[in-house]
Amino acid sequence: MQFDIFTIFPGMFTGFLTESILKRAQEQGLIEITVHDIRNWSTDRHRSVDDYPYGGGAGMVMMAPPIVEAVESIIPPESGNTELILLSASGERFTQSLAAELATRDAIGLICGRYEGVDERVVEILGAREVSIGDYVLTGGELPAAVVVDAVSRLVPGVIQHESTVSESHSAGFLEYPQYTRPFSYRGRTPPEVLLSGHHARIEAWRRDEGLRRTRERRPDLLPSAEPDEPDCSARDDSRDRISIRPKSDTD
Amino acid sequence: MQFDIFTIFPGMFTGFLTESILKRAQEQGLIEITVHDIRNWSTDRHRSVDDYPYGGGAGMVMMAPPIVEAVESIIPPESGNTELILLSASGERFTQSLAAELATRDAIGLICGRYEGVDERVVEILGAREVSIGDYVLTGGELPAAVVVDAVSRLVPGVIQHESTVSESHSAGFLEYPQYTRPFSYRGRTPPEVLLSGHHARIEAWRRDEGLRRTRERRPDLLPSAEPDEPDCSARDDSRDRISIRPKSDTD
Repeated sequence: MQFDIFTIFPGMFTGFLTESILKRAQEQGLIEITVHDIRNWSTDRHRSVDDYPYGGGAGMVMMAPPIVEAVESIIPPESGNTELILLSASGERFTQSLAAELATRDAIGLICGRYEGVDERVVEILGAREVSIGDYVLTGGELPAAVVVDAVSRLVPGVIQHESTVSESHSAGFLEYPQYTRPFSYRGRTPPEVLLSGHHARIEAWRRDEGLRRTRERRPDLLPSAEPDEPDCSARDDSRDRISIRPKSDTD
Repeated sequence: MQFDIFTIFPGMFTGFLTESILKRAQEQGLIEITVHDIRNWSTDRHRSVDDYPYGGGAGMVMMAPPIVEAVESIIPPESGNTELILLSASGERFTQSLAAELATRDAIGLICGRYEGVDERVVEILGAREVSIGDYVLTGGELPAAVVVDAVSRLVPGVIQHESTVSESHSAGFLEYPQYTRPFSYRGRTPPEVLLSGHHARIEAWRRDEGLRRTRERRPDLLPSAEPDEPDCSARDDSRDRISIRPKSDTD
Protein backbone atom coordinates (compact mmCIF):
# COMPACT_ATOMS: atom_id res chain seq x y z
CA MET A 1 0.00 0.00 0.00
CA GLN A 2 1.48 3.31 -1.14
CA PHE A 3 0.52 6.64 0.48
CA ASP A 4 1.54 9.92 -1.19
CA ILE A 5 0.95 13.01 0.93
CA PHE A 6 0.94 16.47 -0.69
CA THR A 7 1.52 19.34 1.73
CA ILE A 8 3.20 22.70 2.21
CA PHE A 9 4.34 21.58 5.69
CA PRO A 10 6.21 18.31 5.10
CA GLY A 11 7.97 18.69 8.47
CA MET A 12 4.68 18.15 10.26
CA PHE A 13 4.83 14.43 9.44
CA THR A 14 8.27 13.78 10.92
CA GLY A 15 7.37 12.30 14.28
CA PHE A 16 4.22 10.64 13.05
CA LEU A 17 6.09 8.61 10.42
CA THR A 18 9.03 7.54 12.54
CA GLU A 19 7.30 6.19 15.65
CA SER A 20 5.31 3.20 16.72
CA ILE A 21 3.26 0.94 14.49
CA LEU A 22 3.60 2.93 11.28
CA LYS A 23 7.38 2.92 11.60
CA ARG A 24 7.43 -0.87 11.88
CA ALA A 25 4.92 -1.28 9.03
CA GLN A 26 7.18 0.76 6.76
CA GLU A 27 10.26 -1.18 7.80
CA GLN A 28 8.44 -4.43 7.01
CA GLY A 29 7.50 -3.13 3.57
CA LEU A 30 3.77 -3.40 4.28
CA ILE A 31 3.14 0.29 3.61
CA GLU A 32 5.14 3.07 2.03
CA ILE A 33 4.54 6.73 2.87
CA THR A 34 6.06 9.54 0.83
CA VAL A 35 5.60 13.21 1.69
CA HIS A 36 5.75 15.71 -1.19
CA ASP A 37 6.27 19.45 -0.74
CA ILE A 38 3.75 21.27 -2.96
CA ARG A 39 6.06 24.31 -3.07
CA ASN A 40 8.39 22.33 -5.31
CA TRP A 41 5.75 22.68 -8.05
CA SER A 42 5.29 26.43 -7.60
CA THR A 43 6.43 28.36 -10.65
CA ASP A 44 7.31 31.81 -9.29
CA ARG A 45 10.44 32.83 -7.46
CA HIS A 46 8.62 33.35 -4.16
CA ARG A 47 7.42 29.72 -4.33
CA SER A 48 3.86 30.99 -3.86
CA VAL A 49 1.13 28.45 -3.28
CA ASP A 50 -1.78 30.71 -2.31
CA ASP A 51 -3.55 33.93 -3.29
CA TYR A 52 -6.60 36.05 -2.39
CA PRO A 53 -10.05 34.58 -3.07
CA TYR A 54 -12.08 35.74 -6.07
CA GLY A 55 -15.14 37.51 -4.73
CA GLY A 56 -13.33 38.72 -1.61
CA GLY A 57 -13.36 37.45 1.93
CA ALA A 58 -10.85 36.77 4.67
CA GLY A 59 -7.85 34.52 4.31
CA MET A 60 -5.98 32.97 1.45
CA VAL A 61 -6.87 30.18 -0.97
CA MET A 62 -4.45 27.54 -2.23
CA MET A 63 -3.87 27.87 -5.98
CA ALA A 64 -4.73 25.02 -8.33
CA PRO A 65 -1.61 24.74 -10.56
CA PRO A 66 1.05 23.69 -7.99
CA ILE A 67 -1.27 21.07 -6.46
CA VAL A 68 -2.55 19.67 -9.75
CA GLU A 69 0.93 19.46 -11.22
CA ALA A 70 2.41 17.91 -8.08
CA VAL A 71 -0.24 15.20 -8.00
CA GLU A 72 -0.12 14.48 -11.74
CA SER A 73 3.66 14.12 -11.72
CA ILE A 74 3.58 11.63 -8.82
CA ILE A 75 0.32 9.79 -9.57
CA PRO A 76 -0.32 9.81 -13.32
CA PRO A 77 -4.01 10.04 -14.31
CA GLU A 78 -5.65 6.64 -14.81
CA SER A 79 -3.11 4.91 -12.60
CA GLY A 80 -4.86 1.71 -11.57
CA ASN A 81 -6.50 1.11 -8.23
CA THR A 82 -5.78 4.54 -6.76
CA GLU A 83 -7.88 6.91 -4.67
CA LEU A 84 -7.20 10.64 -4.52
CA ILE A 85 -8.43 12.49 -1.43
CA LEU A 86 -8.55 16.18 -0.54
CA LEU A 87 -8.76 16.63 3.23
CA SER A 88 -11.32 19.36 3.83
CA ALA A 89 -13.79 20.41 6.51
CA SER A 90 -16.40 20.43 3.71
CA GLY A 91 -15.95 16.81 2.71
CA GLU A 92 -17.94 13.64 3.25
CA ARG A 93 -17.33 12.15 6.67
CA PHE A 94 -14.45 9.74 7.22
CA THR A 95 -15.70 6.55 8.92
CA GLN A 96 -14.43 3.07 9.67
CA SER A 97 -16.26 1.74 6.62
CA LEU A 98 -14.51 4.29 4.38
CA ALA A 99 -11.19 3.25 5.98
CA ALA A 100 -12.00 -0.37 5.10
CA GLU A 101 -12.84 0.64 1.52
CA LEU A 102 -9.57 2.58 1.17
CA ALA A 103 -7.60 -0.38 2.56
CA THR A 104 -8.44 -2.28 -0.66
CA ARG A 105 -6.63 0.30 -2.84
CA ASP A 106 -3.06 -0.07 -4.11
CA ALA A 107 -2.28 3.59 -3.61
CA ILE A 108 -3.84 6.62 -1.93
CA GLY A 109 -2.97 10.25 -2.65
CA LEU A 110 -3.74 12.72 0.16
CA ILE A 111 -3.86 16.45 -0.54
CA CYS A 112 -3.59 18.66 2.55
CA GLY A 113 -5.55 21.90 2.24
CA ARG A 114 -4.55 24.97 4.24
CA TYR A 115 -5.87 28.47 4.86
CA GLU A 116 -9.43 29.32 3.88
CA GLY A 117 -9.62 26.58 1.31
CA VAL A 118 -8.35 25.16 -1.95
CA ASP A 119 -9.22 26.36 -5.45
CA GLU A 120 -12.26 24.34 -6.51
CA ARG A 121 -10.62 23.43 -9.81
CA VAL A 122 -8.24 21.07 -7.96
CA VAL A 123 -11.12 18.72 -7.21
CA GLU A 124 -12.66 19.15 -10.68
CA ILE A 125 -9.46 18.47 -12.61
CA LEU A 126 -8.08 15.67 -10.46
CA GLY A 127 -11.41 14.03 -9.66
CA ALA A 128 -10.43 14.01 -5.98
CA ARG A 129 -12.78 12.94 -3.23
CA GLU A 130 -13.25 15.50 -0.44
CA VAL A 131 -13.09 13.89 2.99
CA SER A 132 -13.52 15.36 6.49
CA ILE A 133 -12.37 13.54 9.63
CA GLY A 134 -14.96 15.26 11.83
CA ASP A 135 -17.20 18.26 12.48
CA TYR A 136 -14.54 20.67 13.63
CA VAL A 137 -12.17 23.13 11.97
CA LEU A 138 -8.40 22.60 11.94
CA THR A 139 -5.55 24.80 10.75
CA GLY A 140 -4.96 22.45 7.83
CA GLY A 141 -5.29 19.02 6.30
CA GLU A 142 -2.03 17.59 7.65
CA LEU A 143 -3.42 16.01 10.82
CA PRO A 144 -6.46 14.66 8.92
CA ALA A 145 -4.13 13.09 6.32
CA ALA A 146 -2.17 11.44 9.14
CA VAL A 147 -5.45 10.17 10.64
CA VAL A 148 -6.45 8.58 7.32
CA VAL A 149 -3.01 6.97 6.89
CA ASP A 150 -3.17 5.58 10.42
CA ALA A 151 -6.75 4.24 10.22
CA VAL A 152 -6.18 2.64 6.80
CA SER A 153 -2.71 1.26 7.55
CA ARG A 154 -3.83 -0.71 10.56
CA LEU A 155 -6.33 -2.56 8.32
CA VAL A 156 -3.58 -3.60 5.89
CA PRO A 157 -2.89 -7.31 6.54
CA GLY A 158 0.14 -7.82 8.76
CA VAL A 159 0.30 -4.30 10.21
CA ILE A 160 -1.42 -5.34 13.44
CA GLN A 161 -2.76 -8.68 14.67
CA HIS A 162 -6.07 -9.38 12.97
CA GLU A 163 -7.64 -10.52 16.21
CA SER A 164 -7.14 -7.07 17.68
CA THR A 165 -9.06 -5.24 14.99
CA VAL A 166 -12.35 -7.10 15.09
CA SER A 167 -13.66 -6.46 18.59
CA GLU A 168 -13.02 -2.74 18.67
CA SER A 169 -15.27 0.26 18.81
CA HIS A 170 -16.91 1.10 15.48
CA SER A 171 -16.04 -2.20 13.84
CA ALA A 172 -18.81 -3.97 15.70
CA GLY A 173 -21.12 -0.95 15.37
CA PHE A 174 -21.06 0.02 19.01
CA LEU A 175 -18.54 1.16 21.58
CA GLU A 176 -15.90 -0.96 23.29
CA TYR A 177 -16.57 -2.35 26.79
CA PRO A 178 -14.46 -1.18 29.78
CA GLN A 179 -11.06 -2.83 30.19
CA TYR A 180 -9.09 -3.68 33.33
CA THR A 181 -5.56 -4.94 33.88
CA ARG A 182 -3.14 -5.34 36.79
CA PRO A 183 -2.66 -4.32 39.50
CA PHE A 184 -5.75 -6.09 40.87
CA SER A 185 -6.36 -3.42 43.50
CA TYR A 186 -5.49 0.22 42.93
CA ARG A 187 -6.57 2.96 45.31
CA GLY A 188 -9.21 0.64 46.70
CA ARG A 189 -10.72 -0.14 43.30
CA THR A 190 -10.83 -3.66 41.87
CA PRO A 191 -12.07 -5.06 38.52
CA PRO A 192 -15.64 -6.42 38.31
CA GLU A 193 -15.74 -9.96 39.71
CA VAL A 194 -17.17 -11.47 36.54
CA LEU A 195 -13.86 -10.80 34.74
CA LEU A 196 -12.05 -13.05 37.25
CA SER A 197 -14.64 -15.84 37.04
CA GLY A 198 -13.02 -17.69 34.13
CA HIS A 199 -16.57 -18.20 32.81
CA HIS A 200 -16.27 -17.16 29.16
CA ALA A 201 -19.96 -16.92 28.35
CA ARG A 202 -20.61 -14.70 31.37
CA ILE A 203 -17.62 -12.49 30.54
CA GLU A 204 -18.86 -12.10 26.96
CA ALA A 205 -22.36 -11.24 28.16
CA TRP A 206 -21.05 -8.66 30.62
CA ARG A 207 -18.86 -7.05 27.94
CA ARG A 208 -21.70 -6.92 25.46
CA ASP A 209 -24.01 -5.33 28.05
CA GLU A 210 -21.37 -2.77 29.01
CA GLY A 211 -20.61 -1.93 25.37
CA LEU A 212 -24.32 -1.37 24.76
CA ARG A 213 -24.71 0.70 27.92
CA ARG A 214 -21.83 2.97 26.91
CA THR A 215 -23.20 3.33 23.41
CA ARG A 216 -26.63 4.31 24.77
CA GLU A 217 -25.03 6.82 27.14
CA ARG A 218 -22.50 8.42 24.83
CA ARG A 219 -23.44 7.72 21.24
CA PRO A 220 -27.13 6.78 21.00
CA ASP A 221 -26.98 7.78 17.32
CA LEU A 222 -24.97 4.60 16.63
CA LEU A 223 -27.65 2.25 17.93
CA PRO A 224 -30.24 1.92 15.16
CA SER A 225 -27.68 0.54 12.70
CA ALA A 226 -25.81 -1.41 15.35
CA GLU A 227 -28.81 -3.39 16.53
CA PRO A 228 -31.12 -4.15 13.61
CA ASP A 229 -32.33 -7.34 15.30
CA GLU A 230 -32.77 -5.90 18.80
CA PRO A 231 -34.95 -2.83 18.49
CA ASP A 232 -36.07 -3.09 22.12
CA CYS A 233 -32.58 -2.45 23.55
CA SER A 234 -32.38 1.16 22.49
CA ALA A 235 -35.79 1.89 23.96
CA ARG A 236 -35.15 0.07 27.23
CA ASP A 237 -35.65 2.20 30.29
CA ASP A 238 -32.47 2.10 32.32
CA SER A 239 -31.84 4.32 35.29
CA ARG A 240 -28.09 4.18 34.65
CA ASP A 241 -28.51 6.17 31.44
CA ARG A 242 -27.35 9.75 31.61
CA ILE A 243 -28.74 10.55 28.20
CA SER A 244 -31.88 9.28 26.58
CA ILE A 245 -32.08 8.30 22.94
CA ARG A 246 -32.10 11.45 20.87
CA PRO A 247 -32.34 12.26 17.18
CA LYS A 248 -29.30 13.13 15.11
CA SER A 249 -29.23 16.84 15.82
CA ASP A 250 -27.60 16.39 19.22
CA THR A 251 -24.18 16.01 17.65
CA ASP A 252 -23.67 19.64 16.71
CA MET B 1 -3.68 28.26 27.46
CA GLN B 2 -1.64 25.29 28.69
CA PHE B 3 -1.80 21.86 27.04
CA ASP B 4 -0.26 18.83 28.78
CA ILE B 5 -0.09 15.71 26.66
CA PHE B 6 0.50 12.30 28.30
CA THR B 7 1.77 9.61 25.93
CA ILE B 8 4.12 6.66 25.58
CA PHE B 9 5.22 8.02 22.17
CA PRO B 10 6.37 11.59 22.83
CA GLY B 11 8.35 11.58 19.59
CA MET B 12 5.11 11.48 17.57
CA PHE B 13 4.49 15.14 18.39
CA THR B 14 7.83 16.48 17.14
CA GLY B 15 6.83 17.74 13.71
CA PHE B 16 3.35 18.75 14.74
CA LEU B 17 4.63 21.10 17.46
CA THR B 18 7.41 22.75 15.49
CA GLU B 19 5.61 23.75 12.29
CA SER B 20 3.13 26.29 11.11
CA ILE B 21 0.55 28.09 13.19
CA LEU B 22 1.09 26.18 16.43
CA LYS B 23 4.81 26.93 16.33
CA ARG B 24 4.12 30.65 16.03
CA ALA B 25 1.43 30.55 18.72
CA GLN B 26 3.89 28.98 21.14
CA GLU B 27 6.60 31.49 20.26
CA GLN B 28 4.12 34.30 20.93
CA GLY B 29 3.25 32.81 24.31
CA LEU B 30 -0.42 32.37 23.37
CA ILE B 31 -0.33 28.64 24.02
CA GLU B 32 2.08 26.29 25.74
CA ILE B 33 2.28 22.60 24.89
CA THR B 34 4.22 20.13 27.03
CA VAL B 35 4.54 16.45 26.18
CA HIS B 36 5.03 14.01 29.07
CA ASP B 37 6.29 10.44 28.67
CA ILE B 38 4.07 8.16 30.76
CA ARG B 39 6.92 5.63 31.02
CA ASN B 40 8.69 8.03 33.39
CA TRP B 41 6.02 7.15 35.96
CA SER B 42 6.34 3.39 35.51
CA THR B 43 7.67 1.69 38.64
CA ASP B 44 9.29 -1.51 37.36
CA ARG B 45 12.67 -1.88 35.71
CA HIS B 46 11.19 -2.71 32.30
CA ARG B 47 9.28 0.61 32.38
CA SER B 48 6.07 -1.36 31.71
CA VAL B 49 2.93 0.59 30.95
CA ASP B 50 0.59 -2.22 29.84
CA ASP B 51 -0.54 -5.71 30.74
CA TYR B 52 -3.04 -8.38 29.67
CA PRO B 53 -6.75 -7.65 30.14
CA TYR B 54 -8.68 -9.23 33.01
CA GLY B 55 -11.24 -11.58 31.51
CA GLY B 56 -9.03 -12.38 28.51
CA GLY B 57 -9.10 -11.12 24.96
CA ALA B 58 -6.61 -9.92 22.37
CA GLY B 59 -4.15 -7.12 22.90
CA MET B 60 -2.83 -5.22 25.86
CA VAL B 61 -4.41 -2.68 28.20
CA MET B 62 -2.65 0.38 29.59
CA MET B 63 -2.24 0.14 33.36
CA ALA B 64 -3.77 2.75 35.63
CA PRO B 65 -0.93 3.64 38.05
CA PRO B 66 1.62 5.21 35.62
CA ILE B 67 -1.08 7.33 33.95
CA VAL B 68 -2.81 8.42 37.16
CA GLU B 69 0.47 9.31 38.83
CA ALA B 70 1.79 11.16 35.77
CA VAL B 71 -1.33 13.27 35.51
CA GLU B 72 -1.58 13.99 39.25
CA SER B 73 2.04 15.10 39.45
CA ILE B 74 1.64 17.54 36.53
CA ILE B 75 -1.96 18.66 37.08
CA PRO B 76 -2.80 18.49 40.79
CA PRO B 77 -6.43 17.53 41.55
CA GLU B 78 -8.74 20.53 41.91
CA SER B 79 -6.47 22.77 39.85
CA GLY B 80 -8.79 25.51 38.71
CA ASN B 81 -10.29 25.81 35.28
CA THR B 82 -8.79 22.61 33.87
CA GLU B 83 -10.26 19.88 31.69
CA LEU B 84 -8.84 16.37 31.60
CA ILE B 85 -9.50 14.32 28.46
CA LEU B 86 -8.82 10.70 27.59
CA LEU B 87 -8.72 10.23 23.83
CA SER B 88 -10.65 7.05 23.08
CA ALA B 89 -12.69 5.56 20.27
CA SER B 90 -15.39 4.98 22.91
CA GLY B 91 -15.75 8.61 23.91
CA GLU B 92 -18.29 11.32 23.23
CA ARG B 93 -17.82 12.93 19.85
CA PHE B 94 -15.44 15.88 19.45
CA THR B 95 -17.20 18.75 17.66
CA GLN B 96 -16.61 22.43 16.96
CA SER B 97 -18.83 23.34 19.90
CA LEU B 98 -16.75 21.17 22.24
CA ALA B 99 -13.62 22.86 20.83
CA ALA B 100 -15.18 26.25 21.66
CA GLU B 101 -16.01 25.06 25.17
CA LEU B 102 -12.45 23.83 25.73
CA ALA B 103 -11.03 27.13 24.44
CA THR B 104 -12.43 28.79 27.60
CA ARG B 105 -10.27 26.60 29.89
CA ASP B 106 -6.93 27.68 31.37
CA ALA B 107 -5.39 24.25 30.94
CA ILE B 108 -6.22 20.98 29.19
CA GLY B 109 -4.67 17.60 29.97
CA LEU B 110 -4.78 15.05 27.15
CA ILE B 111 -4.19 11.36 27.87
CA CYS B 112 -3.31 9.27 24.81
CA GLY B 113 -4.59 5.70 25.01
CA ARG B 114 -2.90 2.92 23.07
CA TYR B 115 -3.47 -0.78 22.39
CA GLU B 116 -6.83 -2.32 23.21
CA GLY B 117 -7.68 0.32 25.75
CA VAL B 118 -6.91 1.93 29.07
CA ASP B 119 -7.73 0.55 32.51
CA GLU B 120 -11.17 1.90 33.38
CA ARG B 121 -9.96 3.12 36.77
CA VAL B 122 -7.98 5.92 35.06
CA VAL B 123 -11.22 7.65 34.13
CA GLU B 124 -12.85 6.90 37.49
CA ILE B 125 -9.96 8.19 39.61
CA LEU B 126 -9.04 11.22 37.51
CA GLY B 127 -12.59 12.15 36.51
CA ALA B 128 -11.41 12.40 32.90
CA ARG B 129 -13.77 12.99 30.00
CA GLU B 130 -13.56 10.41 27.20
CA VAL B 131 -13.53 12.04 23.78
CA SER B 132 -13.45 10.54 20.28
CA ILE B 133 -12.50 12.57 17.19
CA GLY B 134 -14.55 10.38 14.85
CA ASP B 135 -16.10 7.00 14.09
CA TYR B 136 -12.95 5.17 13.11
CA VAL B 137 -10.24 3.23 14.93
CA LEU B 138 -6.67 4.51 15.17
CA THR B 139 -3.51 2.92 16.54
CA GLY B 140 -3.57 5.32 19.47
CA GLY B 141 -4.67 8.60 20.96
CA GLU B 142 -1.69 10.67 19.80
CA LEU B 143 -3.19 11.97 16.54
CA PRO B 144 -6.54 12.66 18.25
CA ALA B 145 -4.73 14.64 20.96
CA ALA B 146 -2.98 16.68 18.27
CA VAL B 147 -6.35 17.28 16.56
CA VAL B 148 -7.84 18.61 19.81
CA VAL B 149 -4.83 20.87 20.44
CA ASP B 150 -5.06 22.22 16.89
CA ALA B 151 -8.83 22.82 16.88
CA VAL B 152 -8.80 24.48 20.31
CA SER B 153 -5.63 26.54 19.76
CA ARG B 154 -6.95 28.25 16.67
CA LEU B 155 -9.88 29.54 18.75
CA VAL B 156 -7.55 31.12 21.32
CA PRO B 157 -7.59 34.88 20.72
CA GLY B 158 -4.59 36.00 18.67
CA VAL B 159 -3.64 32.60 17.25
CA ILE B 160 -5.34 33.30 13.92
CA GLN B 161 -7.22 36.32 12.60
CA HIS B 162 -10.71 36.34 14.09
CA GLU B 163 -12.29 37.15 10.76
CA SER B 164 -11.02 33.88 9.33
CA THR B 165 -12.70 31.68 11.90
CA VAL B 166 -16.27 32.85 11.60
CA SER B 167 -17.24 31.93 8.05
CA GLU B 168 -15.85 28.42 8.04
CA SER B 169 -17.43 25.02 7.79
CA HIS B 170 -19.10 23.86 11.01
CA SER B 171 -19.00 27.26 12.67
CA ALA B 172 -21.98 28.42 10.64
CA GLY B 173 -23.64 24.99 10.87
CA PHE B 174 -23.18 24.12 7.23
CA LEU B 175 -20.32 23.53 4.84
CA GLU B 176 -18.06 26.13 3.27
CA TYR B 177 -18.78 27.38 -0.27
CA PRO B 178 -16.31 26.67 -3.13
CA GLN B 179 -13.29 28.97 -3.34
CA TYR B 180 -11.34 30.23 -6.38
CA THR B 181 -8.11 32.18 -6.74
CA ARG B 182 -5.66 33.07 -9.47
CA PRO B 183 -4.83 32.18 -12.17
CA PHE B 184 -8.13 33.30 -13.71
CA SER B 185 -8.05 30.60 -16.35
CA TYR B 186 -6.50 27.19 -15.71
CA ARG B 187 -6.86 24.30 -18.14
CA GLY B 188 -9.81 26.04 -19.68
CA ARG B 189 -11.65 26.50 -16.38
CA THR B 190 -12.56 29.91 -14.99
CA PRO B 191 -14.25 31.01 -11.74
CA PRO B 192 -18.03 31.61 -11.75
CA GLU B 193 -18.75 35.07 -13.18
CA VAL B 194 -20.62 36.25 -10.11
CA LEU B 195 -17.36 36.23 -8.10
CA LEU B 196 -15.91 38.80 -10.50
CA SER B 197 -19.00 41.03 -10.47
CA GLY B 198 -17.96 43.15 -7.50
CA HIS B 199 -21.60 42.91 -6.38
CA HIS B 200 -21.30 41.95 -2.72
CA ALA B 201 -24.91 40.97 -2.13
CA ARG B 202 -24.94 38.68 -5.16
CA ILE B 203 -21.62 37.10 -4.14
CA GLU B 204 -22.96 36.46 -0.64
CA ALA B 205 -26.15 34.92 -2.03
CA TRP B 206 -24.19 32.66 -4.41
CA ARG B 207 -21.90 31.53 -1.60
CA ARG B 208 -24.78 30.80 0.71
CA ASP B 209 -26.57 28.79 -1.98
CA GLU B 210 -23.42 26.82 -2.78
CA GLY B 211 -22.73 26.13 0.91
CA LEU B 212 -26.28 24.84 1.29
CA ARG B 213 -26.08 22.74 -1.87
CA ARG B 214 -22.85 21.10 -0.67
CA THR B 215 -24.33 20.45 2.74
CA ARG B 216 -27.40 18.79 1.19
CA GLU B 217 -25.19 16.68 -1.08
CA ARG B 218 -22.54 15.62 1.39
CA ARG B 219 -23.82 16.11 4.92
CA PRO B 220 -27.61 16.27 4.94
CA ASP B 221 -27.47 15.31 8.63
CA LEU B 222 -26.20 18.83 9.43
CA LEU B 223 -29.21 20.59 7.95
CA PRO B 224 -31.98 20.40 10.56
CA SER B 225 -29.92 22.28 13.14
CA ALA B 226 -28.32 24.57 10.56
CA GLU B 227 -31.60 25.89 9.18
CA PRO B 228 -34.14 26.20 11.94
CA ASP B 229 -35.88 29.02 10.05
CA GLU B 230 -35.82 27.45 6.61
CA PRO B 231 -37.34 23.99 6.89
CA ASP B 232 -38.27 23.91 3.21
CA CYS B 233 -34.65 23.97 1.99
CA SER B 234 -33.83 20.48 3.13
CA ALA B 235 -36.91 19.07 1.46
CA ARG B 236 -36.44 20.93 -1.83
CA ASP B 237 -36.24 18.69 -4.87
CA ASP B 238 -33.05 19.45 -6.72
CA SER B 239 -31.77 17.37 -9.58
CA ARG B 240 -28.19 18.34 -8.80
CA ASP B 241 -28.32 16.39 -5.54
CA ARG B 242 -26.36 13.17 -5.55
CA ILE B 243 -27.78 12.14 -2.22
CA SER B 244 -31.25 12.68 -0.91
CA ILE B 245 -31.96 13.71 2.65
CA ARG B 246 -31.56 10.69 4.85
CA PRO B 247 -31.83 10.00 8.53
CA LYS B 248 -28.83 9.74 10.77
CA SER B 249 -28.00 6.10 10.15
CA ASP B 250 -26.30 6.84 6.81
CA THR B 251 -23.13 7.95 8.54
CA ASP B 252 -21.90 4.52 9.55
